[in-house]
Amino acid sequence: MTMQDMGRCARAAARKLARTTTESKNAALLALADRLISDRENILAANAQDVAEAKSARLTAAMLDRLTLNESRLVNIASDLRNVASLPDPVGETFDATTLPNGLRLYKQRVPIGVIGVIYEARPNVTVDVAGLALKTGNAVILRGGSETLNSNRALVKVIRQVLSDGGLPADAVQFVDDPDRARVTELLALDEYVDMIIPRGGAGLHQFCREHSHIPVITGGIGICHLFVDESADLDAALKIIHNAKTQRPTVCNALDTVLVHRAIAQDLLPCLVEHLGAAGVTFRADPLALAAFHTPPSTVSPAGPNDFDTEWLSLVLGLKVVDSLDEAMAHIAAHSTGHSDGILTRSDANAARFVARVDSAAVYVNASTRFTDGGQFGLGAEVAISTQRLHARGPMGLRELTTYKWVVIGQGHVRP
Amino acid sequence: MTMQDMGRCARAAARKLARTTTESKNAALLALADRLISDRENILAANAQDVAEAKSARLTAAMLDRLTLNESRLVNIASDLRNVASLPDPVGETFDATTLPNGLRLYKQRVPIGVIGVIYEARPNVTVDVAGLALKTGNAVILRGGSETLNSNRALVKVIRQVLSDGGLPADAVQFVDDPDRARVTELLALDEYVDMIIPRGGAGLHQFCREHSHIPVITGGIGICHLFVDESADLDAALKIIHNAKTQRPTVCNALDTVLVHRAIAQDLLPCLVEHLGAAGVTFRADPLALAAFHTPPSTVSPAGPNDFDTEWLSLVLGLKVVDSLDEAMAHIAAHSTGHSDGILTRSDANAARFVARVDSAAVYVNASTRFTDGGQFGLGAEVAISTQRLHARGPMGLRELTTYKWVVIGQGHVRP
Repeated sequence: MTMQDMGRCARAAARKLARTTTESKNAALLALADRLISDRENILAANAQDVAEAKSARLTAAMLDRLTLNESRLVNIASDLRNVASLPDPVGETFDATTLPNGLRLYKQRVPIGVIGVIYEARPNVTVDVAGLALKTGNAVILRGGSETLNSNRALVKVIRQVLSDGGLPADAVQFVDDPDRARVTELLALDEYVDMIIPRGGAGLHQFCREHSHIPVITGGIGICHLFVDESADLDAALKIIHNAKTQRPTVCNALDTVLVHRAIAQDLLPCLVEHLGAAGVTFRADPLALAAFHTPPSTVSPAGPNDFDTEWLSLVLGLKVVDSLDEAMAHIAAHSTGHSDGILTRSDANAARFVARVDSAAVYVNASTRFTDGGQFGLGAEVAISTQRLHARGPMGLRELTTYKWVVIGQGHVRP
Repeated sequence: MTMQDMGRCARAAARKLARTTTESKNAALLALADRLISDRENILAANAQDVAEAKSARLTAAMLDRLTLNESRLVNIASDLRNVASLPDPVGETFDATTLPNGLRLYKQRVPIGVIGVIYEARPNVTVDVAGLALKTGNAVILRGGSETLNSNRALVKVIRQVLSDGGLPADAVQFVDDPDRARVTELLALDEYVDMIIPRGGAGLHQFCREHSHIPVITGGIGICHLFVDESADLDAALKIIHNAKTQRPTVCNALDTVLVHRAIAQDLLPCLVEHLGAAGVTFRADPLALAAFHTPPSTVSPAGPNDFDTEWLSLVLGLKVVDSLDEAMAHIAAHSTGHSDGILTRSDANAARFVARVDSAAVYVNASTRFTDGGQFGLGAEVAISTQRLHARGPMGLRELTTYKWVVIGQGHVRP
């Protein structure tokens, strides 16, 4: 099947799926959850083949971990699907209703986006996650997973398509690019006749590749150089707890903290405590000259910051430290170095908090809380398909509603334009 | 100045403009309206130069008309600016406020998109329109107008930038690509580091070029193959009035009607009247075989539809006619031939209206009204920057709100993620 054919089939399936009832979609989600468990032997056998090949190809332990499925992971994936089934269906919701002076009635109604292309790395759980979120919102998907996970994805997609067919839904709503050739990605990105949105899930290189080659709007995101600024008025005990959480609770993800900015007035009070407290959790530090000067003798965990350190997403137990003279200097640093993901202020000053919130333009702007909350689940969206750091359509965590668009409905009684 | 430099300046100006008060922005809009009138001699002299060159280059009368400014047109442009000043400022609005069970307070706040690239044809009014809408919403713009209007745009942009400076606003918020070389367009489309959104205003070729070459999300739109389906239950007198309005009130624009679908049961009642009524207004018709069969002898204004006629946006007094057997056949035709702009049903059946509204997925879906209402002004948005027929960010008429995005604001009291 060519990518063109795949696009055409996905478009036709999307049309059918758009008018499927919430009940049918939820029934299919629950059936899929069950089938993942009842078909676990086939799925795990296919996955074992991928893992074996990955081991002989000497993939890193982290990659192997992300690639591996087991019974408990399947149970978690199934449980996520049941959760998605339990969420409200955004499709069909109406909003912004109004009656114009001429009597024309107007409202907007949420409809599926249509066909979504998702390009991701070797994580078979994403295959099911994304298919489930798309199904719930009436969207068809074209899935392009990492080549290392071809056997797993083949097995999973077979189950998904079977469940769709069994439920009277179009199996073609879930398309799978069963070809590791990178040329297929470029072709997918050019299918603007059939595909309405591209979601890359992977590193900065993948996002850049998609932006440069896509004829279709791309939701870029998931890259976070995140900052917390500790104001001179901050509650230092609370600040230590928040910084500890933001840096260490899960350092490998995009909403983990990368740089702490400290007001000069409290640098000598905060920084030695912070380094001791987080150092005990295995954190090492890259400090600018003023931050280094806050120590009589800097401990061995603290080294001078290099030229690119404040432009690095650490994704590990490394933390940048910088002393600033003012709120304005802190905000200027954030404007220059943030990726616009999650940035916050720790303060007891309402005025400074308000100024920070008004001026810092990141997808999520925090006051007195850990950046780790930037997440669809934590924000109460129930699910998350991506965290957008671009500015169109949606910013920050994207839940079910962000997988829909709207149409205008206009009801007249013979209205003509004068 | 290179396009890179222009992008960098626009980004810096956008940051300043984002924190400009509504009062300053409105004052600048009003000052600009005044300056267009007081500087009219310079502006009209520059425009006369463009018009003279266009005449020697033998541009069409329609192009010359769009290119030409005169005193009354300047008065209209100034009046539009005053209207934009009078509209509410969407920037800063908060919405979707919630407090999570853990006490974290969350809301979204509207912020400018940032930097918008606008690529348009030889219409100097667009230069002022777009600059005004961008200024109101705190966005910087990079303007790339048609090469035939270089002198006019140079004069207009000089005035705009002067007014910004005089008002203490960043002049660099309005950037002008003062170079007719098409290579600059391609460079603009690759400035994803500095530009957040591209709006092409022109024909299908320009939109396709932008989609294919842009690294930045593109708002495509403004192409409308628009349909009205006359149901067997329709009020035929009302239908005639609506069709007449949709086809003839302004045939050269995207929301003008292109194809009438008629239920077979009323084809012989409706079509001869329709052809007589609209024929008197200069309309000619392209009819499918069943529509032709509705006439004893088709009048000279009716010719058989050719193979591409139902895929043509007429932009002139031509109307396609097709007879269908059912609502479903009408909707299938629309799904196959519509550009997703504006499509409607004329009916007295609530059930058929509901079915049509549920199934037809165009930016604007009509019941018993003319497609000519698809317009920001007519929809009560107060202004319009484009009509989107793509599915992300915004669909249909885009007003001021659609020139904004949002950020999440998260207020804690020392919250950490468990």
